[in-house]
Amino acid sequence: MFQGQTILRIPGPTPIPPTVEQALSRPMIGHRSGEFSKLFAETAERLKLVFQTEQDVAILAGTGTAGLEAAVANTVSPGDTVLVCTAGNFGERFIKIVKSYGGRVLVLEAPWGERIAPDAVRRELEQHPEIKVVFATHCETSTGVLHDIEGISKAVRETEALLVVDAVSSLGATDLPMDRWGVDIVVTGSQKAFMLPPGLCFLALSERAWQVVEQNDSPRFYFDLRSYRKKLAERTTPYTPAVSLIFGLAEVLNLIEQEGLQQVFTRHLLMRDMVRAAGRALGLPLFCSDEAGAPTVTSFSGNGFDVEALRKVLRTEFGIVIAGGQQHLKGQIFRIGHMGYCTPLDMLQVLAALELALLRVGAAVELGAGVRAAGQVYLNAKEALKHA
Amino acid sequence: MFQGQTILRIPGPTPIPPTVEQALSRPMIGHRSGEFSKLFAETAERLKLVFQTEQDVAILAGTGTAGLEAAVANTVSPGDTVLVCTAGNFGERFIKIVKSYGGRVLVLEAPWGERIAPDAVRRELEQHPEIKVVFATHCETSTGVLHDIEGISKAVRETEALLVVDAVSSLGATDLPMDRWGVDIVVTGSQKAFMLPPGLCFLALSERAWQVVEQNDSPRFYFDLRSYRKKLAERTTPYTPAVSLIFGLAEVLNLIEQEGLQQVFTRHLLMRDMVRAAGRALGLPLFCSDEAGAPTVTSFSGNGFDVEALRKVLRTEFGIVIAGGQQHLKGQIFRIGHMGYCTPLDMLQVLAALELALLRVGAAVELGAGVRAAGQVYLNAKEALKHA
Repeated sequence: MFQGQTILRIPGPTPIPPTVEQALSRPMIGHRSGEFSKLFAETAERLKLVFQTEQDVAILAGTGTAGLEAAVANTVSPGDTVLVCTAGNFGERFIKIVKSYGGRVLVLEAPWGERIAPDAVRRELEQHPEIKVVFATHCETSTGVLHDIEGISKAVRETEALLVVDAVSSLGATDLPMDRWGVDIVVTGSQKAFMLPPGLCFLALSERAWQVVEQNDSPRFYFDLRSYRKKLAERTTPYTPAVSLIFGLAEVLNLIEQEGLQQVFTRHLLMRDMVRAAGRALGLPLFCSDEAGAPTVTSFSGNGFDVEALRKVLRTEFGIVIAGGQQHLKGQIFRIGHMGYCTPLDMLQVLAALELALLRVGAAVELGAGVRAAGQVYLNAKEALKHA
Repeated sequence: MFQGQTILRIPGPTPIPPTVEQALSRPMIGHRSGEFSKLFAETAERLKLVFQTEQDVAILAGTGTAGLEAAVANTVSPGDTVLVCTAGNFGERFIKIVKSYGGRVLVLEAPWGERIAPDAVRRELEQHPEIKVVFATHCETSTGVLHDIEGISKAVRETEALLVVDAVSSLGATDLPMDRWGVDIVVTGSQKAFMLPPGLCFLALSERAWQVVEQNDSPRFYFDLRSYRKKLAERTTPYTPAVSLIFGLAEVLNLIEQEGLQQVFTRHLLMRDMVRAAGRALGLPLFCSDEAGAPTVTSFSGNGFDVEALRKVLRTEFGIVIAGGQQHLKGQIFRIGHMGYCTPLDMLQVLAALELALLRVGAAVELGAGVRAAGQVYLNAKEALKHA
């Protein structure tokens, strides 16, 4: 069967809007030109809106993991004790990075699919006053859980420790008011809610975090955030910037500003609710509770059918790519990404195809039931908006 | 609400595949260069596959109407009697063009939404042996009716008259074996099943038609098909070709060849059947019979709701553009295009949105019923293919 464009419904990289694709294709300009300097400085300034911060936002050429490493390299000195909250693959990544920088890692673990309890963070901090940095994941992409960063931040703010948040698959799609919640470092990447190809990461740091960064003595060069701060003040970058991605980023910020950040959040919540309602109507077990469900990615457990076969049908028959499980969840769950450049209509599309694919792999679902449930959620939300 | 890309579900212009967009963006080359000459000659040769003909295919820079006019200008001399079969807006266009060239027009009319009966054509030809050319429309875009060109051609072949077919919204999506059916001139444009922007038209002529063209004395210059034939033999064009569109056309032919022409037809029939089944399940009156329903566009009558309001909801809430009625059908019908770069998945998408939009304009439809019916058609077709 002839296929349309590949439809990415993985939790990143996500589809690129056409106007962003056009921006990415702009002819190269000199990275030390006045034209680029102006664009770069303005773009960095506009990023503050999405971080909901008054602080500068550092832009590095590198993916999300580069951003996470920069956060570690600038805050963890060898021998420092840190607490890593983990309930999935990306929490675990923090552990590996901190260890590679010689940090002493305390791990606060929750089962995959569950949330880290802020009170548990509080207890760890009481028992281990030597903790200098707490690392937490906002959206745990591997499970589809959105952790309670507001609650965790309250617990951390009762101490002198820093709170570093991996917001790679949440920022720009989900409310994360960094300054108001008192988060010290927020890290994200370009290829999720930012609707860009992979290749950029962004970090914003509180004043408290910058003080730690100034005193930190971990070896670092490319990831030394002091260089980025200093050069940003001069409207430039310490090393060659990813010029095309900055062109794209400027257009992404246009799109976010046009829609309005709150409306972006509302759209993502609506997409989440549509997907979850459809799953319920189709008898698909949701991998995490409604309270924990992220607005950017939804995980379902297989229910007597072959999850990998389901993904294959979606890919080969409909050109739709969804994600499987990671590590021990491989073959156990599948994940539908709904972040960035996607709409309620896209959810109806993926759900209609999902129903057909479920039937094709032998799952007993009622054709149309998922789309109907998602459509009802959509109509109710529209009705609520009208009377708001 | 933030919208995805505008989704064209009108019966042309149709969406452009990404690889075709890329081809259209290729840097310009000299139109008299060896490189272009080679590309042009090869592309014209490959077009024969889609026309199912051994004859040369003329490529003109102009839209579908330019192609229709070229067919008239080259076959109708002033004072010639012609028969125009019409059951919609595009049949009527032929009448206007023939009249502007001084032809004497006999009209064989069927009500909009119905097919021209081949026997009626036969009767006209018997009663008017002076008819030199019969003009017919394959897919009448304004109503969604596919006329019986095979039957009409049989009737015309019993005489010396030529048969000219407007295949603008059918060729490349629907079986039209020109040589086998004995059609004399097939005209189409680039912006329908050919998945290109508007700007090219293609004409293939039988040997019999070429003889008439050689003797025709209507005034013509740009539309003189003799120039195109002569220059094609020299691997070039009489006037400046639309270079970018030729780049795009070459890629379109790649896509059609990769899928296979028969498979292209099957896909369009499947999309038609999905849309019609959904309409039935939703209680939407189909504007023409199943037998007459075109594989490229489906028309529905409004059913107690405001058709234009429905179109507006689809456009503003979902970014989906469908067509309304033309002339006296304005406000009476709506038309969903399903030709060119679209798939069964796209049908599920437009139908899911259509259901919601119907509810929003107050139509009493069962949410999910249309998508379910379309999905069932899809599954049955897949099952049939498996056992074929």
